[in-house]
Amino acid sequence: MSENGVVPRAKVLTIDTMNPTVKNVEYAVRGPIVARAVELERELSEGMKKPFAEVIKANIGDAHAMGQQPITFFRQVLALCSYPELLNDSTFPDDAKSRARRILQSCGGNSMGSYSASQGIDSVRQDVARYIERRDGGVPCDPNNVYLTTGASDGIMTMLKLLVCGEGMTRTGVMISIPQYPLYSAALAELGAVQINYYLNEEKCWSLDISELQRALDEARNHCNPRALCIINPGNPTGQVQSRECIEDVIRFAAKEGLFLMADEVYQDNVYAEGCQFHSFKKVLFEMGPEYSDTVELASFHSTSKCYMGECGFRGGYMEIINMDDDVKAQLTKLVSVRLCPPVPGQALMDLVVNPPQPGEPSYDNFIKERSATLSALAEKAKLTEQILNTVEGISCNPVQGAMYSFPRIIIPEKAVKEATDKGQQPDMFYCMKMLEETGICLVPGSGFGQKDGTYHFRMTILPPRDKLQILLNKVQEFHQKFTQHYS
Amino acid sequence: MSENGVVPRAKVLTIDTMNPTVKNVEYAVRGPIVARAVELERELSEGMKKPFAEVIKANIGDAHAMGQQPITFFRQVLALCSYPELLNDSTFPDDAKSRARRILQSCGGNSMGSYSASQGIDSVRQDVARYIERRDGGVPCDPNNVYLTTGASDGIMTMLKLLVCGEGMTRTGVMISIPQYPLYSAALAELGAVQINYYLNEEKCWSLDISELQRALDEARNHCNPRALCIINPGNPTGQVQSRECIEDVIRFAAKEGLFLMADEVYQDNVYAEGCQFHSFKKVLFEMGPEYSDTVELASFHSTSKCYMGECGFRGGYMEIINMDDDVKAQLTKLVSVRLCPPVPGQALMDLVVNPPQPGEPSYDNFIKERSATLSALAEKAKLTEQILNTVEGISCNPVQGAMYSFPRIIIPEKAVKEATDKGQQPDMFYCMKMLEETGICLVPGSGFGQKDGTYHFRMTILPPRDKLQILLNKVQEFHQKFTQHYS
Repeated sequence: MSENGVVPRAKVLTIDTMNPTVKNVEYAVRGPIVARAVELERELSEGMKKPFAEVIKANIGDAHAMGQQPITFFRQVLALCSYPELLNDSTFPDDAKSRARRILQSCGGNSMGSYSASQGIDSVRQDVARYIERRDGGVPCDPNNVYLTTGASDGIMTMLKLLVCGEGMTRTGVMISIPQYPLYSAALAELGAVQINYYLNEEKCWSLDISELQRALDEARNHCNPRALCIINPGNPTGQVQSRECIEDVIRFAAKEGLFLMADEVYQDNVYAEGCQFHSFKKVLFEMGPEYSDTVELASFHSTSKCYMGECGFRGGYMEIINMDDDVKAQLTKLVSVRLCPPVPGQALMDLVVNPPQPGEPSYDNFIKERSATLSALAEKAKLTEQILNTVEGISCNPVQGAMYSFPRIIIPEKAVKEATDKGQQPDMFYCMKMLEETGICLVPGSGFGQKDGTYHFRMTILPPRDKLQILLNKVQEFHQKFTQHYS
Repeated sequence: MSENGVVPRAKVLTIDTMNPTVKNVEYAVRGPIVARAVELERELSEGMKKPFAEVIKANIGDAHAMGQQPITFFRQVLALCSYPELLNDSTFPDDAKSRARRILQSCGGNSMGSYSASQGIDSVRQDVARYIERRDGGVPCDPNNVYLTTGASDGIMTMLKLLVCGEGMTRTGVMISIPQYPLYSAALAELGAVQINYYLNEEKCWSLDISELQRALDEARNHCNPRALCIINPGNPTGQVQSRECIEDVIRFAAKEGLFLMADEVYQDNVYAEGCQFHSFKKVLFEMGPEYSDTVELASFHSTSKCYMGECGFRGGYMEIINMDDDVKAQLTKLVSVRLCPPVPGQALMDLVVNPPQPGEPSYDNFIKERSATLSALAEKAKLTEQILNTVEGISCNPVQGAMYSFPRIIIPEKAVKEATDKGQQPDMFYCMKMLEETGICLVPGSGFGQKDGTYHFRMTILPPRDKLQILLNKVQEFHQKFTQHYS
C-alpha cells in the first residue's frame, strides 16, 4: 500500500511490456555522457566546485551553440516571412524581400502557419531541383523526385521504413559503415531490420574498400536479405571525403549486387583538404551512363543543419530519389502525408540554402563574405585539430578532410581497460567519462559509432571558436598524458 | 530491352517487396480526393473550363490557408527570434522583445539555429507546466513530464510506438473512436498494432457510452491484448465536447480495465456551444483522488496548430505524461533523442501560446481582441454550418459544440450506392468526388474516418470566411438536392 492507503495498480506500460525494438535503440551522441554533462553544468551553475570552470560540449555538430553566426540574409528572410509587416521596412534589402514574397506566395493564405503539401512547398522543390542541377553540372533533376524533410534524419528514417520487410532469414538487411553515425543503427533497431557492418579502412584515411563491402555482404547473405547500402560522404564521424573513383566502384557494386543506395550528403559543402572535392552520388551515377543511371535506385539526403549554415534547430532538409518504382513512390507520398508536412520555416530556410543571393543582388557580397569566413575558419580548425592531436603520444588521427569531426584513435592502457570492463563499461566510455569529470570536456566515445574490436576512439567536433578549440585540445592532451601515466 | 539498349535490372524496391505495414496505411484527409482537388486547381489555372471558378478546400483544419490571420504578437516574437537585430527596432513592443530575449537565452549560442534538448527547451517546458497548472485550477504539473513535439501527431505516434509489442493473440490493441481522426488508424497500421473500434453515439450528439467501450474491449480481448484507449476531446471529426461526468466514467473504465489513456486535446480552446466546457483529462483525473491520480497512466497532447492560433506550419506541440513508469520514461527520452529535437521555431511558438501577453503588458489588449475575434467568428460559423445543413432534406448534423468540423450524415440513394459499389468505390467517396467535380468543393468522405455500416457522412471544416462558408453551404445544399434527384 502507498502512504495514502491506495493499493497501487500494476502499470500498463513497463520496461517489460514496452516495444522491444525501442529498447534496442541506442543513440550515443545524446547518450549518458551528455546527460552527465548537462548535470555538471547545473552543478557548476549552483556553485558546486569542479576542477574546471565550464563544460565544453564537443559531442554534437551544433554550430550555432558553439558560436557560429547565422547567415544574415537567411535570417532576414525568415523574419520577413514570420512577420510580413516588415516588408514595409526600408532597412531590409530588396533581395531578402523578394525571396520572402516568393515563399509567402507559395504558402496557403500567404502564411508560414499553413500546412504545406506533404512532399513540401512546390516552389521550394523547384528551387532544390535547380540547385541540384547546378551542383551536378547540368544533370537533370525532376522536382517530383524531391521530398522536403524534417532534417535529414527524418528522410533517412522514412526511406529505411519503406525498405524493411520479411522475417528471419529474409529480414531486410542494411549495410552501414563502421564507424557510423548512430542514427542509422538506431533507426535499424527501431525498425527491427538487420544491421550489416562494413568497416572503413582507418589505415588508409578511413577509405572504403569494395572487397570489404563484398565480405560484409557475403556474410550477411547467410542470415538476412541485404537490400540497401548506406554511405556517408563526407564521412561522419570519420571526416574522409570519397574520391570519384571510389563512388563509381560503390555504384557498380550496388548495381551488381542489387542494393538500394542511400547517400547521406549533408556535409557536401564541408570539404577542407587540398585535392579533395565533393562528388555527389547522383552526378557520378549519371556520368556512368544509362546502364547505371537508368537502373540504380538512389536516395540522397541534404539538410540545413550543417555546411556553412549550421541551422540545426529549424529541422530543414530534403531527399532526392532516383529510379524509384512509381508505385513505391506513391506509397512514400502517402506515408509522409500522415505527418502532414515538414516544418514550413525549415522549408523556407532550405529554399534560401539552394537559392542564395546572386551576383548583382544587394545581399550577395555580404553573403559570400559570411559563408567564406565560416568555411575557412572550419578548414583552419580541421587542420589545427589534426596537428595537435597527432603530437600526443597514444593519440593518432587521420586528417579531417571534410565534415565537422575528428575521430582519433586512442591507446587505452590495459589496466584502464580492465577497470572499465570490471565496471561493465566500454573502455572508451570510461575514458571519456573520466575526461568529462576532470576537464569538463564532453566527447563521444568511439563505441557509440562502432569501431574494430580492440581499438578505441572518440569523436570531437571541430566547431568551437579557434581559441576555445586550442584550449580544448591542450586539455585533451594533458588529460590523455595523465590518464596514461595513471594506468601504466 | 529499353530503347537505349540496356537490359533493365529488376528494382530492389517494389510494391511487392516494400514494408507491408506501410502499404496498409491510409490517410483520407490527404487522400485521393485532395490529390484530385490539387489537379483541378492546376487545370483551372491553365485556363481549363470547369463548372466552378475556384476550388474550396474544406478538407483539412488549415486555418491560415482559409484566411484566418496569425496573432500579431506571436509573429512579432518569432521575427525577433529569427533576426535578433530587430531587438533594436523601436517599433516592436517591449513585451514581444522580452519574450524573444527569454527564448533566445534558452537557445545554445542565443540562436534558434541550435539544437535544443531532445525533450524540448527547458524554459518552454516550464512555461507549459505553468500553463497546465493555471488551466487545471492549480493541479500541479512537473516540467519533467512535459515533452515538446513536432505537432501533436508526432507525440501521438511516439506514445503509440512505446506501447506496441507482442504477436498474434498478444499483439497490442488500441481503442479508438469511430469516427476517428485518421492519424490514429494510420499510426496503428504502420506499427502493426490492432485497431479496436468503439462507436460514438451519433443519436446522442456523438457522445461516448461506457457500455460501448466495454463491448468493444470484451470483443477485442478474444484476439489481441488491448492496452490503450484514445479519446479526442473536443471531437475530431465529430465536434462533440465531452461532459465532466463522461470523462470521469472513461477514467474509471481505464482504471478498471488496465488501459493507458491517451487524450488528444488539441482543440481545447475550440468550444462554442452554450453549456459546454472543456475539461482536461488531467484535471478530472486529479480531482477523482489518489485512487486514480496516483495510478492511471495518461498522456495528453496539445498543439500550436488549432484553437485561435492555427499555426499548423510551425509543427509545434507538447505532450504531458502522468504516472509513466520511470524506466519507460527514460526509454521515451532516449527514443525522442534519435530525432535530435522538435523544430525550435515551433517550440518558441508553443511557448507564446502557453505564455501570452498578460494584463498590463503593451500587447495584451490587441492579443485579446485578435483571439476573441477568431474564436467568436468560429462560434458563429459553427452555428451557421449546423443550421444550413439541417435545412437540407437528406442531410442531418449534430451541433458543432467544439473543434473545427461538421460531420453531417447524408442519405445516399440506393442507385448511387450501387453505382459506387460497381466502381469499387465507397458510396461517400463517390458522392464527395462528384461534388468536387461539379462544385469545386473538397470535403472528406466519412469512410475515411470510419462510420457505422450503412451510414454515410462527410467532414467539412467550418474555417472558410463567413461569406465563403455561406456560398459553400449553399453549393453543398444545391449539389445534394441534384444528386438525390438524379439517383432517385
